[in-house]
Amino acid sequence: MDVKQELKKRADFFNQQLEKYLKKGKPETLYDAARHLPLAGGKRLRPCMAMLACEAVNGDISRVIPLSVSLELIHNFTLVHDDIMDKSKLRRNIPTVHVKYGEPTAIIAGDLLFTKAFEALHGTQVDPSVFKDVEFGLIDCTLEICEGQQLDMEFEKRHIISEEEYIEMILKKTAVLFMYAAEAGAILGGGTKEQSQALNEYGKNLGLAFQIHDDYLDMSSNKKTLGKDIGNDIRNGKKTMIAVHSLNHAKDHNKQLLEIIFGNKNATEQQIKQVYNLFNKTGSIEHAKQTAINYCEKAKKQLEIFPDSEAKQILLKLTEYSIKREK
Amino acid sequence: MDVKQELKKRADFFNQQLEKYLKKGKPETLYDAARHLPLAGGKRLRPCMAMLACEAVNGDISRVIPLSVSLELIHNFTLVHDDIMDKSKLRRNIPTVHVKYGEPTAIIAGDLLFTKAFEALHGTQVDPSVFKDVEFGLIDCTLEICEGQQLDMEFEKRHIISEEEYIEMILKKTAVLFMYAAEAGAILGGGTKEQSQALNEYGKNLGLAFQIHDDYLDMSSNKKTLGKDIGNDIRNGKKTMIAVHSLNHAKDHNKQLLEIIFGNKNATEQQIKQVYNLFNKTGSIEHAKQTAINYCEKAKKQLEIFPDSEAKQILLKLTEYSIKREK
Repeated sequence: MDVKQELKKRADFFNQQLEKYLKKGKPETLYDAARHLPLAGGKRLRPCMAMLACEAVNGDISRVIPLSVSLELIHNFTLVHDDIMDKSKLRRNIPTVHVKYGEPTAIIAGDLLFTKAFEALHGTQVDPSVFKDVEFGLIDCTLEICEGQQLDMEFEKRHIISEEEYIEMILKKTAVLFMYAAEAGAILGGGTKEQSQALNEYGKNLGLAFQIHDDYLDMSSNKKTLGKDIGNDIRNGKKTMIAVHSLNHAKDHNKQLLEIIFGNKNATEQQIKQVYNLFNKTGSIEHAKQTAINYCEKAKKQLEIFPDSEAKQILLKLTEYSIKREK
Repeated sequence: MDVKQELKKRADFFNQQLEKYLKKGKPETLYDAARHLPLAGGKRLRPCMAMLACEAVNGDISRVIPLSVSLELIHNFTLVHDDIMDKSKLRRNIPTVHVKYGEPTAIIAGDLLFTKAFEALHGTQVDPSVFKDVEFGLIDCTLEICEGQQLDMEFEKRHIISEEEYIEMILKKTAVLFMYAAEAGAILGGGTKEQSQALNEYGKNLGLAFQIHDDYLDMSSNKKTLGKDIGNDIRNGKKTMIAVHSLNHAKDHNKQLLEIIFGNKNATEQQIKQVYNLFNKTGSIEHAKQTAINYCEKAKKQLEIFPDSEAKQILLKLTEYSIKREK
């Protein structure tokens, strides 16, 4: 069984549904801007997570379609706003929304996607009291994502961040949506409390591993593979796990080098390469890799309580995929 | 009975409640930024509208506190984002959020307020299926507010806008939240369908009158009274009802004058005054005033089905207040 193929199968199915929830509208420019990123593809990992969690508790996948759409729209709303804040120019190999439509429209397009996420969730066919609980989880999650994004920005301005602080930040910024996706998928699929809590914990560990690997990819990939600006993270002083580790462990000359280049908006290509090399020298890339592996192991352990199924096999393999993928 | 005092009584009560729903949090800067505008006062018209609608159907005011908070937070979230788009520097006589905290934090603070609005609404003590319907109304409303804000921006770039288009824009941008406030207030207060629909229609007409008068105030007030940048609307080519009417009716020399000054970012104080005078000459200020009065009459008519009560009297007087207030 090929995990990439299994994800693609679900992503393709999801994409057909997404179109229906994100129709064209008026003013045209606003709806075009709102559709720009979500309809440009992407891995659809959060929707897949919700579907797989639902399948793992033997639930009917149709019950989590609105949830899946909602998750993807929340994710995209945060990306649209984050790209404005980070002044990113590329995402998924296409211009970011604010580059194509201007900042004001991009801000509203993000707000619209946010609203559409809640609109989509309302399509969930479930008892209203269950709906209310599930929806409250999404609200809680979005609050944490806002907090995580603010922490991420604040960390860029601080020189030293502890690894603990870094983990708290990516937990809020990234992992909570995975946690919620897996837990809510299980609840709507009819899983037990024990199952939905185990999947919440699975999502947390997978999300952390995923984000650490994502930062690693930003450091090592080229523009073509990842569709993002490269070197930006170093120029912006972005506190990835690799950077955090290196800043905490570099000494003497290397420490000075980081102080000069890391967070320097005008760093040259040559200087960016020097920092890459230093990250290797301090063992920071290896450390990040190992930490991601540890989180994956924890994620896998959570699946022990589930009876064997195709979904369980995919969730198991997903942990490895999340730290081995090249984009 | 003094309508201003009655509003103030409810606003004071509301302010005590709001604090509880918008507590400090971490990261501190984010929560400070999010609290900056909502806790800086304001008329609290939307919360008052929900409370008065609830009272008019003989409902207990405690049932609409979460709704009232939610309305004010949605309103404030849109103001925070709008101020970024319009590059406004002042609001309620204090620096705007992006001026004080920077654009990135202001974007997230707006997102946080948006999320907090839904969190607050979840505190409504009502049957989950009624809750679901009421909440869906707020989602629908927010979609229209996004559309209205985009239209507002697009109109700035177009020279000629019809009055019909203008009304559609302010309906979405402003009136829908009044409609929703009044309707949802009546529903949660236990009103009949006929009552909640009449209050929806009341809110619509009041909201339109309110926005037309707001545009009028921007044209005529000084910075001290209103706490906003003056002249900005003319420099930005903002399509208020007054501007729309004047652009559609000015002829020859006056038309040329408008073409040169209206929407000119570098217009001098002298030129701003020239445009003020022209707005008078084309009868546009008078026209806007009269249109607002007509909407108020329509709003009043909707109240005929209600038995007499203090709340009904206040709602009646509110229509006059909304077009006579000086800030």
